[in-house]
Amino acid sequence: MYIFGHKKPDTDSIVSAIAYAELKRKLGEEWKPARLGEINSETKLVLERFGVDAPEEISSVKGSKVILVDHNEFDQSADDIKEAEIVEIIDHHKMKFSWDKPIYILTKPVGSTSTIIAEKYMEHGVEFTKEIAGLLLSGILSDTVIFKSPTTTEEDKEIAKKLAEIAGVDMNEWGIEMFKAKSRISEKTAEELVTGDSKIYEFSGKRVLIGQVEVIDDSEVLQRKEELLEEMRKIKERESLFGVMLLITDIMKEGSTALVIADEISPFEKAFGVNFKNGEAYLEGVMSRKKQVVPPLENAF
Amino acid sequence: MYIFGHKKPDTDSIVSAIAYAELKRKLGEEWKPARLGEINSETKLVLERFGVDAPEEISSVKGSKVILVDHNEFDQSADDIKEAEIVEIIDHHKMKFSWDKPIYILTKPVGSTSTIIAEKYMEHGVEFTKEIAGLLLSGILSDTVIFKSPTTTEEDKEIAKKLAEIAGVDMNEWGIEMFKAKSRISEKTAEELVTGDSKIYEFSGKRVLIGQVEVIDDSEVLQRKEELLEEMRKIKERESLFGVMLLITDIMKEGSTALVIADEISPFEKAFGVNFKNGEAYLEGVMSRKKQVVPPLENAF
Repeated sequence: MYIFGHKKPDTDSIVSAIAYAELKRKLGEEWKPARLGEINSETKLVLERFGVDAPEEISSVKGSKVILVDHNEFDQSADDIKEAEIVEIIDHHKMKFSWDKPIYILTKPVGSTSTIIAEKYMEHGVEFTKEIAGLLLSGILSDTVIFKSPTTTEEDKEIAKKLAEIAGVDMNEWGIEMFKAKSRISEKTAEELVTGDSKIYEFSGKRVLIGQVEVIDDSEVLQRKEELLEEMRKIKERESLFGVMLLITDIMKEGSTALVIADEISPFEKAFGVNFKNGEAYLEGVMSRKKQVVPPLENAF
Repeated sequence: MYIFGHKKPDTDSIVSAIAYAELKRKLGEEWKPARLGEINSETKLVLERFGVDAPEEISSVKGSKVILVDHNEFDQSADDIKEAEIVEIIDHHKMKFSWDKPIYILTKPVGSTSTIIAEKYMEHGVEFTKEIAGLLLSGILSDTVIFKSPTTTEEDKEIAKKLAEIAGVDMNEWGIEMFKAKSRISEKTAEELVTGDSKIYEFSGKRVLIGQVEVIDDSEVLQRKEELLEEMRKIKERESLFGVMLLITDIMKEGSTALVIADEISPFEKAFGVNFKNGEAYLEGVMSRKKQVVPPLENAF
């Protein structure tokens, strides 16, 4: 019985799984938190800070009962997810899911799955330990880019404030510290930058990988543009994709530079109303892949 | 801003919409309960008993904000549902839904949507009026076939008990009275029997209409077998379906007689491990379309 978030797990996926397994345990059910890939540098810092072990890495879930957190699309889940028994989903992404039995599903249009898990603690009257409060706070700060992402809601802010008090953490200081750990650009290979926080989406049958790098200053990443485009070409070929897109999001400028390698550039130009020059375009105000990049691409395709 | 249940509304679809609109109103949001078709004789009795008007019938939802209750599949919703803005779903059926934005979705594997709506009242600390308690109780009794359906959970029973106290109603007496109103067989045309409580499902691209008649004694319906098969043939042609299935469920025997008209009978025989003779087979213990009929058909197709 496993609880896990999406492939290429981010902090929200990891801490949601840990905190929800802990809540289930307190309610009398034994579930194991798990992960579908390596922990990133930000999540590593979070786990160290609150003294919590990383969940077990798993690759197959065949025959297991599973709870999906922070995702619902099969493409982003375990390879053999269809051979598992899905019993619950808790998520904050758009829904693209079908299953042959009624199950428990809760999705909310909030900034992070951690927000929803925190609400479940409160709903059940289960108190947060300092550790769990710290983990969930980190999930919110990470997914909302310290409340700068347009996916952020009042609910996220209120819950985060409450969790910060319990964890005894200064939200802003801790958010920036996490952020720096995440974007240690110089230490990362081009492949890590492109695929580190990436998902494959299917638009009218065409598979597009969309990666995102969030930084406080985008110049360091943009200096490596040619190297990144070359890596994107390789990934596109290897995975037989229609396209690969990398968003370099500058959270101070509040906008993203998009790099694209694709069979056709027109759907990307149509989606954002921009022209790509040498595979590059600046998307003013675009910070959220989920809310500002995926929906217009879906329409354009 | 409309809240509505599925086409060919049953009692659960109607009372869920009314009760959820009322809860939203008390929480400060104005939503209008609505329905996608005629009120059946059972629902009519329920509304009369608790002195509540039927929701407005609507056919188009283009451009409206909508909340779907008691269904999530587009096939079972308004014809132009894709042109509406879906903002919430509350349901107890299997999920087959995709949308291009994150929204609020809550589904639970319980016996009725009324159960979930009642829980939402309690969650928000909003008291039930006698009327709302009576309506929601009726939704539970109808959808769980007075707790005889295998979809029934302890949650349904507990909530129903609480609602019955508030409404001042004897659950069992009221359940049987509702049930008799529903199955006034002699007053119904063959078309009403086949399509009165029916849904169209798509199995691997093949469209099958499945209707259900629940009775306390199945002999009266079975006497009209030839008339029913003839009607089913007509519906199949008219709607260009792969097949039409009618379940005649005897809640005292706790089993259903299935009538089938289809391009091929083999998926139906495979699904239930029975042979159909003259389009008829008895399905021992089968009472729930959703839980015991749709999943095996999905596998067989």
